[in-house]
Amino acid sequence: MDSRPIGIFDSGVGGLTVVKEVMNNLAGESIVYFGDTARVPYGSKSKQTVTRFSAQIIRFLLSQDVKAIIIACNTVSSNSIEELREMFPDIPMVEVVGPGVHMALRTTRSGKIGVVGTQATIASHKYPELLIEQNEALEVYGKACPLFVPLVEDGWANHNVAFEVVAEYLKPLLEKNIDSLILGCTHYPMLTHTIKKVVGDQVELINPAEEAAKRMEDILVKNNMTSDDEKPEYKFYVSDSEERFKEMAQIFLHKPIEHIATVPIEEY
Amino acid sequence: MDSRPIGIFDSGVGGLTVVKEVMNNLAGESIVYFGDTARVPYGSKSKQTVTRFSAQIIRFLLSQDVKAIIIACNTVSSNSIEELREMFPDIPMVEVVGPGVHMALRTTRSGKIGVVGTQATIASHKYPELLIEQNEALEVYGKACPLFVPLVEDGWANHNVAFEVVAEYLKPLLEKNIDSLILGCTHYPMLTHTIKKVVGDQVELINPAEEAAKRMEDILVKNNMTSDDEKPEYKFYVSDSEERFKEMAQIFLHKPIEHIATVPIEEY
Repeated sequence: MDSRPIGIFDSGVGGLTVVKEVMNNLAGESIVYFGDTARVPYGSKSKQTVTRFSAQIIRFLLSQDVKAIIIACNTVSSNSIEELREMFPDIPMVEVVGPGVHMALRTTRSGKIGVVGTQATIASHKYPELLIEQNEALEVYGKACPLFVPLVEDGWANHNVAFEVVAEYLKPLLEKNIDSLILGCTHYPMLTHTIKKVVGDQVELINPAEEAAKRMEDILVKNNMTSDDEKPEYKFYVSDSEERFKEMAQIFLHKPIEHIATVPIEEY
Repeated sequence: MDSRPIGIFDSGVGGLTVVKEVMNNLAGESIVYFGDTARVPYGSKSKQTVTRFSAQIIRFLLSQDVKAIIIACNTVSSNSIEELREMFPDIPMVEVVGPGVHMALRTTRSGKIGVVGTQATIASHKYPELLIEQNEALEVYGKACPLFVPLVEDGWANHNVAFEVVAEYLKPLLEKNIDSLILGCTHYPMLTHTIKKVVGDQVELINPAEEAAKRMEDILVKNNMTSDDEKPEYKFYVSDSEERFKEMAQIFLHKPIEHIATVPIEEY
């Protein structure tokens, strides 16, 4: 038994999709979440900058006495995971690319897999690299979709404009007859409805957050670090002001956010 | 005569529209530009964060011995100018909202003026406040257009999607029969072609960068601080990696960028 919290972080609100999975499936665990709202988005930034920002966040989470960390951000997972594991060898870390790869391997029949993500995630080639390492016969097609996040954040997710943008981005992937599409960014599950309208029933959508929560559970069980608190604590930290994040988080998680504070993250 | 450079800053590449005006109209002046590419965009962030980031940048520019500063960013100009003038009383500063207001007052016939900008610029109500201070009879209509910047950055500026988004954002302003539209964000002039297609010939587009360069000239002349260097120096600094900025800047300015470096801006 270990009642210390799990640390989860992302560039902004997107990682709440992972928080939700942990709340639902690891109900006795406390959570410390950090969203880097002052420096969001990460997907258009360089590997060095993404690694530097992530290291500051991990140092902050360690100062909050977390027992393990989930990197909810695909941009961090695909660009910086080796460096971060080297910098912080003592804390168990789960990232999201491995889980997405695992799910796609189980799902695909034709062996033709699409991956959508930020510019930095696609440029890293991490998803195709790991998939083909598992099975050389796979065909993997990546596509950066930088407009998806702003469409979601500005409330256009179900508008005709979103449909047109999704259709244009996914056209080259659909032409390759993919049967599975990895949603390689935590924001993208919020576009599921529109993406389904474009890709139809023939393409399975894969959300790595589900499997990431399971991996965290496996690690905790294996190391006797689980917790079954009846009243787990959920604490949220952001780098910009609290109001907007609190509002979005309450809508998305369907529960009141009681503990939220701003952290001067560049000092960590 | 004062051969020290003019400092110009923005959240990213957008402020190059101001750099271009200064290069063309104040040809003997050297420039130090800072683009906060690691923390772009500012338009969705809080006033406190925008002020804090801007103060770090101004401290950096002062360390480069600039004689005056142009705040090219509308989000900073509309939210943080009073605080910044108080924090740095000794350096002459030109911002972009006052110049935009000045141009709109000259342009409008009907007295109905539209303003487009980031969420933070529109929420500040700075443009309507200053316009109505000059003339109580004016009607000013603001509209935040958070998708404009990503559309420009991702190369959709002349796509049908951009036309649809522009049309939807501007609909409430056009219904008010505005005759002038202030482009209250340095990125927006890059959407001029599509905006003109939507608004037609009846609406005059106003780009505050032109007047901002003139104001800087006025200040330098008044204080005997102009320079007529035959070979002015242009130095560019960014907070993220140099490559992408350099590429975009060279295309936009039509000249090679010889001096560019990354600065750890949070240390200032």
